[in-house]
Amino acid sequence: MNYFSSNFKLGILGGGQLGKMLLYNTRKFDIYSCVLEASEDAPCKIACDEFHLGSLMDYDAVFNFGKNVDVLTIEIENVNVDALEALEKEGVKVYPASKTLRTIQNKAKQKLFYRDNDIPTSDFTRFAYLSEIEDALQNGGLELPFVWKAAQFGYDGNGVKIVRTLEDLDGLPKGECIAEELIPFKNELAVIVARNASGVTKTFPVVEMEFHPEANQVEYVICPARIADNVATKAREVALKVSQAFSHVGLLAVEMFQTQEDEILVNEVAPRPHNSGHQTIEASYTSQFEQHLRAILDLPLGRTDSKVGGVMVNLVGAEGFTGNVVYENIENIMTMEGVTPHIYGKKQTRPFRKMGHVTIVNEDLNEARRVAEEVKKSIKVISG
Amino acid sequence: MNYFSSNFKLGILGGGQLGKMLLYNTRKFDIYSCVLEASEDAPCKIACDEFHLGSLMDYDAVFNFGKNVDVLTIEIENVNVDALEALEKEGVKVYPASKTLRTIQNKAKQKLFYRDNDIPTSDFTRFAYLSEIEDALQNGGLELPFVWKAAQFGYDGNGVKIVRTLEDLDGLPKGECIAEELIPFKNELAVIVARNASGVTKTFPVVEMEFHPEANQVEYVICPARIADNVATKAREVALKVSQAFSHVGLLAVEMFQTQEDEILVNEVAPRPHNSGHQTIEASYTSQFEQHLRAILDLPLGRTDSKVGGVMVNLVGAEGFTGNVVYENIENIMTMEGVTPHIYGKKQTRPFRKMGHVTIVNEDLNEARRVAEEVKKSIKVISG
Repeated sequence: MNYFSSNFKLGILGGGQLGKMLLYNTRKFDIYSCVLEASEDAPCKIACDEFHLGSLMDYDAVFNFGKNVDVLTIEIENVNVDALEALEKEGVKVYPASKTLRTIQNKAKQKLFYRDNDIPTSDFTRFAYLSEIEDALQNGGLELPFVWKAAQFGYDGNGVKIVRTLEDLDGLPKGECIAEELIPFKNELAVIVARNASGVTKTFPVVEMEFHPEANQVEYVICPARIADNVATKAREVALKVSQAFSHVGLLAVEMFQTQEDEILVNEVAPRPHNSGHQTIEASYTSQFEQHLRAILDLPLGRTDSKVGGVMVNLVGAEGFTGNVVYENIENIMTMEGVTPHIYGKKQTRPFRKMGHVTIVNEDLNEARRVAEEVKKSIKVISG
Repeated sequence: MNYFSSNFKLGILGGGQLGKMLLYNTRKFDIYSCVLEASEDAPCKIACDEFHLGSLMDYDAVFNFGKNVDVLTIEIENVNVDALEALEKEGVKVYPASKTLRTIQNKAKQKLFYRDNDIPTSDFTRFAYLSEIEDALQNGGLELPFVWKAAQFGYDGNGVKIVRTLEDLDGLPKGECIAEELIPFKNELAVIVARNASGVTKTFPVVEMEFHPEANQVEYVICPARIADNVATKAREVALKVSQAFSHVGLLAVEMFQTQEDEILVNEVAPRPHNSGHQTIEASYTSQFEQHLRAILDLPLGRTDSKVGGVMVNLVGAEGFTGNVVYENIENIMTMEGVTPHIYGKKQTRPFRKMGHVTIVNEDLNEARRVAEEVKKSIKVISG
């Protein structure tokens, strides 16, 4: 099919910032785009060819939207998977596949998938109910500390808790969960794998997610990761293996731990463009968003290497501010070299809401990292 | 004024491909954008916040559109300048200024401006009517060959003709025109100057416009130009002088000749993002479109140097094809390294219509130039 001059329609489930950045690329290639999203205020409201209002968890909304497109993709995992499965039967190309999404949506299934496919991951136990964890602790089937994760619908650190004492279990959701071995990792790494419908794969360079020493939040994404070459090679190989195990089409962002012994363990994956790939817009030959399009449209994949070093800083709502957003000192950071702010266009801020990101590029990665720290200190997302 | 969280509105006159690429950047910074354009099929129909239908040459259409925005810019020069002047009096910030646009719109005035401001340019004579050229030739006031240019409303090589014999004058428009000395140049060069409202300036690297040996059409824009450093320095200085002479705010693309004696002569200017700057999207730290926004919003200007070498190829409609556009072999060119097609989204092709462009980037400029030639040979814009 020739996407460039036909009646081809691409459907995107979700109208947030990832969809917005994907739409820059549908426009660049002049690909007709349709977006389904529950909120009128979504960043994707403009720039798509068709905007449809509807809940992504509603079977009929997703099915009726999807049956009018040729290729359907997502920018968020929490969508109605039964509708995707029905659409696949109708001949719509759904990337990621419903089967992949079903596995990924449930963290217990996701971990079992890694185990079944010989993909290195930390040890874990699945529990149908939170109460079973207490039993397991009492009878010695589980030891403190461990990482509790809700099986369903966690995102951005929600649904994850390090449990060091019995009291840490208080107030957690009662449902299905897993208890994972707590890994004293050296680094958190991520690799984005692109795989097109013909099965051609490419991996982006390994990035390093630098965490705030106190808050459990990614402060900087650094590309390339400052790790030994052999570790980087291993990380790319593991990520590739995950993409191939899923026969995944599109981008797969694979988050991993580098252990003290330089082992690589898969933590979790996202089957779409991802926060750990935003720096590709400015730093790489091909942005992750263009690459996702190339992959799902079965076009040749673009170069994944970097032109320059890149560091990404998330812009999240400051604590204590809720309401109409104001980006304090944004003009200051624009005086710094190689700094590009990306403002997602959400009207309302609240503590820790992702409101944008800033990319810093430089020939010298250390200089980019230094400027990133200045950016982080200067800009503040508040209300006013 | 804080553009990033207020009720600020940016107005853009024209809804073509330059506006479309500018809108990627208004979206990136979440700046509210309004577009005025006469055609419903324009590439800017989506991605702006408000699309207004109306003729750019109509006083009322431009005035009524402009009075509702805070800053007004253009993506095409042929707009109603009287309306711009009235809007300036109303307090709207109009960039480029009506006065600048009046000078640039008329090629005779533009040349006089260079002469008055000691900006090097080729010799010329202004004529109120074409018939005066014949008189001048007869009485020895003008010699063959020379370059005829219509004073008003030329674009993309229209309104320009090399006159070698009297017969070459046949069929030319009768109105105001200039006769310019024919310069046997070594190279056609261009420099884009950014100047913000506070008067801070930056120049992008000099680019080289490589022409097809037979057709009088730019085939490749090459960044940086393959010229001596002292020539490049001179070209940047001359371009800067033009921007300062106009007290111009925004981008000014300055097209120049490099003579056989390595003199720099200004040919003409465009007070907006320009075809000679498209490669900045992939090759530069700051794209020309982001830089134009930074300039007209009086933000700090971004870095203008290049990350990698860049070559741009225009995609124009092939001769003999008119109708619904088809991009033949676009998938082939996407297999080549560092190749990004930009499809403007015009539905109908016709011979020589600008339908898109392709950027080729590479660490090695010669390799980028080689791939560009492959691109040029492979892709064809036809109808079907």
